[in-house]
Amino acid sequence: MENTDSSSEGNKFRVRKLELSDKSKGFIEILRQLTVCDSVSDKEFEDRFKEISMYGDDHVICVIEDETSGKIIASGSVFIEKKFIRKCGKVGHIEDVVVDAGARGLQLGKKIVGFLADHARSMGCYKVILDCSDENKVFYEKCGFKQKEIQMVKYFV
Amino acid sequence: MENTDSSSEGNKFRVRKLELSDKSKGFIEILRQLTVCDSVSDKEFEDRFKEISMYGDDHVICVIEDETSGKIIASGSVFIEKKFIRKCGKVGHIEDVVVDAGARGLQLGKKIVGFLADHARSMGCYKVILDCSDENKVFYEKCGFKQKEIQMVKYFV
Repeated sequence: MENTDSSSEGNKFRVRKLELSDKSKGFIEILRQLTVCDSVSDKEFEDRFKEISMYGDDHVICVIEDETSGKIIASGSVFIEKKFIRKCGKVGHIEDVVVDAGARGLQLGKKIVGFLADHARSMGCYKVILDCSDENKVFYEKCGFKQKEIQMVKYFV
Repeated sequence: MENTDSSSEGNKFRVRKLELSDKSKGFIEILRQLTVCDSVSDKEFEDRFKEISMYGDDHVICVIEDETSGKIIASGSVFIEKKFIRKCGKVGHIEDVVVDAGARGLQLGKKIVGFLADHARSMGCYKVILDCSDENKVFYEKCGFKQKEIQMVKYFV
């Protein structure tokens, strides 16, 4: 018995946590569609993977793997900040959301953001935040976000 | 021999890391000038303090104590996010910068932000970022920041 189209699509584009083996599935290449992302050696990747893993559920990177091609086609991350305000509240920070240029229109970005926001909520966060360009504002509004403040940056390099 | 005014001011308003005893020096009260900050029991404060301390230099909260009154009059925090982009780069996130309403005009905000940005730089971050209201944009520009993106938020409570 075959699944319906919609449920088989659902399986095909499942969001899961990043695994060490995802480096060979094009994880770094997908990040290059986001920003500057130089080559990373297997050792560097493993070291950073372990550093982030030490935070457990407080820093989660998720991916979508195209089950057909075996390639990573979307990713995003969230980390949980522990505060004293809001009765020792927590805030989820979403970062580095990216969808492969060849996989647009499949709602993968929405799946990634939904996964990350759900994770933040399940960790007890009172809100989840992210920074984006004006261009991406409408996309995040569709994900249930509202514009609030402005982002300021200071570069060291 | 007495210090000059400027260096004695420098000592009087020294930025240092948050300590457990700062709860009794008005640390929670100062945060109330920033946002909603309900009462926190000594136990809750200690637990959260320990949780954050576990991150070591990856999550630093700093304060300025008025040596005369023994009260905390300014605070801010920074945490270090570990990424894969930018050759496994790091980004500093500044949060919860606040100066006591009675201590404005003493450049304490600038000291706090400078301390946090210096910490991020010393930790190897390629940039430090923060979100603020339009109203505070000029202040952060004076601290060497530039506006880049917009902040989006989704509240759970």
